[in-house]
Amino acid sequence: MNQTVSLKEIAEKAHVSPATVSRVMNKNGRYSKETEERVLRIIEECGYAPNQLARGLRMSRSHIVGIIVPDITNEFFAKLIQVIQNRLFDFDYPVAIYNTNESKFTEKKCLRYLRAQNVSGVIYINGNEDIEGDSLDDIPVIYVDRKPAELPKSKTKYISSDNRRGGYIATREMLDKGCRRIAVMTERFGTYVMTERLTGYAEALNEAGIEADPSLIFKPELISYESAFSIVEEKIKNGVEFDGIFCQTDWLASGAIAALKRCGKKVPNEVKVVGFDNISISYLCYQPFTTIEQDIASIGNYLANAIMGMIDDTDRDGPVRVFPVNLIRRQTT
Amino acid sequence: MNQTVSLKEIAEKAHVSPATVSRVMNKNGRYSKETEERVLRIIEECGYAPNQLARGLRMSRSHIVGIIVPDITNEFFAKLIQVIQNRLFDFDYPVAIYNTNESKFTEKKCLRYLRAQNVSGVIYINGNEDIEGDSLDDIPVIYVDRKPAELPKSKTKYISSDNRRGGYIATREMLDKGCRRIAVMTERFGTYVMTERLTGYAEALNEAGIEADPSLIFKPELISYESAFSIVEEKIKNGVEFDGIFCQTDWLASGAIAALKRCGKKVPNEVKVVGFDNISISYLCYQPFTTIEQDIASIGNYLANAIMGMIDDTDRDGPVRVFPVNLIRRQTT
Repeated sequence: MNQTVSLKEIAEKAHVSPATVSRVMNKNGRYSKETEERVLRIIEECGYAPNQLARGLRMSRSHIVGIIVPDITNEFFAKLIQVIQNRLFDFDYPVAIYNTNESKFTEKKCLRYLRAQNVSGVIYINGNEDIEGDSLDDIPVIYVDRKPAELPKSKTKYISSDNRRGGYIATREMLDKGCRRIAVMTERFGTYVMTERLTGYAEALNEAGIEADPSLIFKPELISYESAFSIVEEKIKNGVEFDGIFCQTDWLASGAIAALKRCGKKVPNEVKVVGFDNISISYLCYQPFTTIEQDIASIGNYLANAIMGMIDDTDRDGPVRVFPVNLIRRQTT
Repeated sequence: MNQTVSLKEIAEKAHVSPATVSRVMNKNGRYSKETEERVLRIIEECGYAPNQLARGLRMSRSHIVGIIVPDITNEFFAKLIQVIQNRLFDFDYPVAIYNTNESKFTEKKCLRYLRAQNVSGVIYINGNEDIEGDSLDDIPVIYVDRKPAELPKSKTKYISSDNRRGGYIATREMLDKGCRRIAVMTERFGTYVMTERLTGYAEALNEAGIEADPSLIFKPELISYESAFSIVEEKIKNGVEFDGIFCQTDWLASGAIAALKRCGKKVPNEVKVVGFDNISISYLCYQPFTTIEQDIASIGNYLANAIMGMIDDTDRDGPVRVFPVNLIRRQTT
C-alpha cells in the first residue's frame, strides 16, 4: 500500500463497497467472515497500518472527522456536536473539535490544523463569511448555517435550518397576538443566517400590510445577554416604542426580557418577545419564553451520516438541505 | 530522523530547549533567525516531516493535545475547555476534544482513539473512577477532578478545585444565616469530587455542633434540573423537613429552587439554597442564587501551561495542585 492508494481502490480489489472496507478496518460488524478475511488479506498485501496515525498517512487521510465551531460554550452548538459525535462513534470515527471563539485569526489557524491533521472530513459550523474553506482542498466539507460562496463544488454540502421560515413564524406569532410595532434584534455583520431570519421577519410584516421601520432594527455589540440588555434599555430610554421584539437568538431574548422588566415594561402584556434556538435558558430563565426550535437531533444525525457518505463516496444526496423549524409557545406571547 | 528520535534529542543537537524546537517547528516566534536556521537544519538532516501527521509518526507523537470531557453541553466544562484551548493556541498546539457523554463504554473508546491518534498529552476531565488511564502508557496526563488510583506516576498530575472547602463554605453560609436542618444534594456514585464536597458539608455541621442527618442526604437519579426538581418535590411531599439545601451543582440548585417554589416554600425565607460552579444559569434563572465559584481561568491556564511543560519535559511543578474556591452571594441565602 503506498501513500496514494485510496479506500476505494482497496474496495475495488476486494469487490466490496468502500463502506465495508471501512467497517472491516474498524471491526465495526455488518459483514461476513468471508468478506472480512478477503478485505484484511488485501490490506495486508498492501502493508498493514499498525495504528490510526500510520493508517492516516498511508491512506493519505487520518481516520478523524474535524468539527469547526464558533463558540463551544453556546449550548446550541454543544448539543449539536454531541449528536454528531454520538452518531460518528457508531461508525468508529473520532471527532476533533476546533473552537474558533468567533475569531477570524483562530478560524484560519483551525483550517491549517485540520489540513495538517489530514482529517477525513470537516463539519464547518457557522464559519466566518470572509474565510473560504477552499484551503481544505478535496477534503469533504459540510457547511452548517453559513453558505459558501459557490456551490456545488464536488464533495461540498451546505445545510441549515429554515431560518427564513423561522423569522416569519416568530413575527407572525406576535402579529396574531395583536402587535403592530415589532422590533427585531439581529447582529451587526449581516451573516447569511441572520439575514435570512430578517427576511422572514420582513415578509410577515409585509403580509400584514405593515411597513418595516428601520428604527426598530436593533443591533447589539455582541450576541450576548449583556449586549441585548444594554441595547433594549437604551432604546426604551431614548423613547423608541415597540410592542413586540423578535430576538434572533435565545441569549438575546433573555437579555431583552430582563431589560424590559428593569424598565417596568410588562411582558407579554405591553411587549411580546420571541427568541430563537430553544436552548435551556429559554425555559429556565426568569420568564420562560416563546422561541423557534431548531431540530438538533435531525440536523446532527444528518450531518454525521452525510459526512460518512461523502468520505466513503456513497453519498447520493444533493448539495443543499434545509431543516424545518417549529414555534414553541411559552409565557412571552 | 527515525521513529524514536525525540524533541529533546533534536534540542540537544541544536543546543536549545525543547520548547524552542517546538516553537521553530510551529513558526511561533520568540527565537533568533540564527536559532531558527540551526534548528531547521538539524530537523532537515534527520528528514523533514512534510506535515503534522508525518511529523507525528516520525516523532512518535502527533502534535495535538487530547481533552476527555464527560459532557460538552455542561457550561462549566465548555468554558474550561475554551480557556485551555485558547492558551494552547498560543503554543500552536491544536486540541482534539473527546466527549464521553458520561458513558463508560464511550470513555474507553476515547482512550483508544487518543492512543491511536498518538497525542502528545491528555487533559482528562472528570473521568470515570472505574477506568484507569494507564492504557495511555507514557503519554503525559493531567487528571482533573478525578483522582487516579496511584500518584505520582511519572508524567501524571492531578488537579482540582478545593471541593472540600467549597462544601464547607456553602454549608457555613447557611449556618451563619440561621439554618439548622441543612440538606445536601449529591450524586449516587460517590465520585471523589462529590465525596470531598460532602466531607466539607459534614465538617461545617460538625463545627456548629450539629449531627449530620442521613435522611437529609438527597441523591437524585441524574445530575440534572429535572432530577433535582423531582427529588425535592418528593422529599417535601414525604414530610422531610429542612431549612437549607446545599446542591452540589448549579443545575441541581436551579431544579431545587423551581421545586421549592412549586411546593409553596419561600426562598430564602423558609429554605436557603447554595449551588456549585457559578455557571450562567446561577444568575439568569428564575431567582439568581448563591453558589460556589470555581476559578475557571486559573485552572484552564494552569492546565495548558502544565501539559506543555510535561510534553517539553520542562515541567518542575508537583504532581498535585488544588485551586481555591469562592462564595458568590445572591438571592437565596
